[in-house]
Amino acid sequence: MHIHLKALEAIFKTEHKLPLNVKVMIEGEEEVGSVSLWDFVAKNRQRLKADALVVSDTSMLAKGVPSITYGLRGLNYYEVEIIGPMQDLHSGAFGGAVPNPITILAEMIAKLHDKNFHVTVPGFYDDVAEISRVERKALNSLPWKEKEFRKTVGSPDLCGEKGYSITEQTWTRPTLELNGIWGGYMGEGSKTVIPSAAHAKFSTRLVPNQDTQKIAKLVERHVRKLLPKTVKCNFQVLSMGKPWVAPYQHPIFRTAIQALEQGFGKKAVFIREGGSIPLVTQIHDMFKVPCVLLGFGLPDENAHAPDEHLSLENYFDGIKSVALFYDQLARA
Amino acid sequence: MHIHLKALEAIFKTEHKLPLNVKVMIEGEEEVGSVSLWDFVAKNRQRLKADALVVSDTSMLAKGVPSITYGLRGLNYYEVEIIGPMQDLHSGAFGGAVPNPITILAEMIAKLHDKNFHVTVPGFYDDVAEISRVERKALNSLPWKEKEFRKTVGSPDLCGEKGYSITEQTWTRPTLELNGIWGGYMGEGSKTVIPSAAHAKFSTRLVPNQDTQKIAKLVERHVRKLLPKTVKCNFQVLSMGKPWVAPYQHPIFRTAIQALEQGFGKKAVFIREGGSIPLVTQIHDMFKVPCVLLGFGLPDENAHAPDEHLSLENYFDGIKSVALFYDQLARA
Repeated sequence: MHIHLKALEAIFKTEHKLPLNVKVMIEGEEEVGSVSLWDFVAKNRQRLKADALVVSDTSMLAKGVPSITYGLRGLNYYEVEIIGPMQDLHSGAFGGAVPNPITILAEMIAKLHDKNFHVTVPGFYDDVAEISRVERKALNSLPWKEKEFRKTVGSPDLCGEKGYSITEQTWTRPTLELNGIWGGYMGEGSKTVIPSAAHAKFSTRLVPNQDTQKIAKLVERHVRKLLPKTVKCNFQVLSMGKPWVAPYQHPIFRTAIQALEQGFGKKAVFIREGGSIPLVTQIHDMFKVPCVLLGFGLPDENAHAPDEHLSLENYFDGIKSVALFYDQLARA
Repeated sequence: MHIHLKALEAIFKTEHKLPLNVKVMIEGEEEVGSVSLWDFVAKNRQRLKADALVVSDTSMLAKGVPSITYGLRGLNYYEVEIIGPMQDLHSGAFGGAVPNPITILAEMIAKLHDKNFHVTVPGFYDDVAEISRVERKALNSLPWKEKEFRKTVGSPDLCGEKGYSITEQTWTRPTLELNGIWGGYMGEGSKTVIPSAAHAKFSTRLVPNQDTQKIAKLVERHVRKLLPKTVKCNFQVLSMGKPWVAPYQHPIFRTAIQALEQGFGKKAVFIREGGSIPLVTQIHDMFKVPCVLLGFGLPDENAHAPDEHLSLENYFDGIKSVALFYDQLARA
């Protein structure tokens, strides 16, 4: 955000006017769920009308690689509760004859992926948009270092959907990931309990053109179908968020890429991200305008953590790029 | 215990002497792990020597059904930790390409039973002693009410090892039960995390002649074999306890059953229990004497809970039975 304002200031100081109309919206609540934002946007729809949205909330692919993020995954988040016995039971007196909610939850979870790491929910992939050979090749040719990724993860090995590269797995493919699980005795030592219930939180990352409502229904139906009749199940959808992909053939993206290359003196790239920025999808849907995600953070700058910082090189080259972007946009 | 002392007192008041030598050992630490008991027994081995051990720590099958417990299951307790990524990861940026410890733990747990609820650990059943047709028939003819059992459990249905009745499943068959599971985000709402690790506690109930050490090794080997190379695993055996079954053809058991039937004026039965009493197994192993488990509690008397109580009928009939038992034992 600061980089964008500095760029506008630079233009203003040089040209004594801005080359086009700019409406600035500063969001200070993103980390607490943007509670006021959506109301504000809906109430000021006319005043906010524009030809394009420029957002500064993304990262560069790596140091020295200026990037435009043109795709984000959507996110549906679920919570499931498996209820067996009416109360916790003694595993000595009852073990062997009663449904164990932990085991049954685990057996259900185990059936959510096949051995190729495909999600087994029927219809899950039906609406996934095919990615063109050109785009696929472009994403797989990026100066992205698998070695760095493996080092960050640190597990003995990686695993993911068969037939797709790591960038495809994390940027362009839908996923189902377990985010939390709990049930029974979790303290030190041992307690011979068969718990009454077990719980899990999990989420699906979604890609164009998956429909959040439809996926939520398919997931719930599948989960219920996988469970035996010996238990009851509470299924909740905690949130839904759409996937987003920009029409990056739109001329504004050409202008942005050229401005980045001039500003950094380096080749700029189009990237996607595996995460979600709900605002982008919402603005995109409401105003039907291209959204340009121009961000200058690096993955290792401790975002949201102690000692968060920003590379000075990216700060100054970012200001230059954004100034060039607005200037060239006005001439386009 | 009190019932047994009252019975001895009654004999003494009537006969002015006890008909045989009785050594009384009162254990006040059972609920805190019998920390001093085993040392005491080992140090007083000679003084404690006897022809039989009588223990009062079991329940009657049901109201009006005096019972002798002649079998207990053993218990091995385990804890497993599955470690994937070096730290918690964002499920947006990494989801789809990295090993998820929760999913992998669930997939491992799901493979521990087959669809007939047999435990899949190779060799798990190898040493399970066959139960005679006579014993099996006796256990299945007990005045035990499945309806009551189902009501206590309260789950929509029961499930257990195919080919065995509920009493067999809980008294005479070994089991593997999950006792606890945890990992990732367990709070309210959602957090899009792929956790670094996931944990489970589980236990195997064991029956004669399964060997605790051997079973622990088989279980660990199987668990490790079921896990993919993408994760690391810490496996701990938290405790081991042997199964026990009394030589209930020994004449002392005939004497005990007759005393119970006379004392209560009702048919007495031999039962087994699914839980464990480590003392019984240890005494049995050290002194090689028959252990007679004569208890007079009922399953619904809130043992170890508020308003614990004892039926007065069982209290008085219990005293009568135990007095008759010692008296007849002396004449045998």
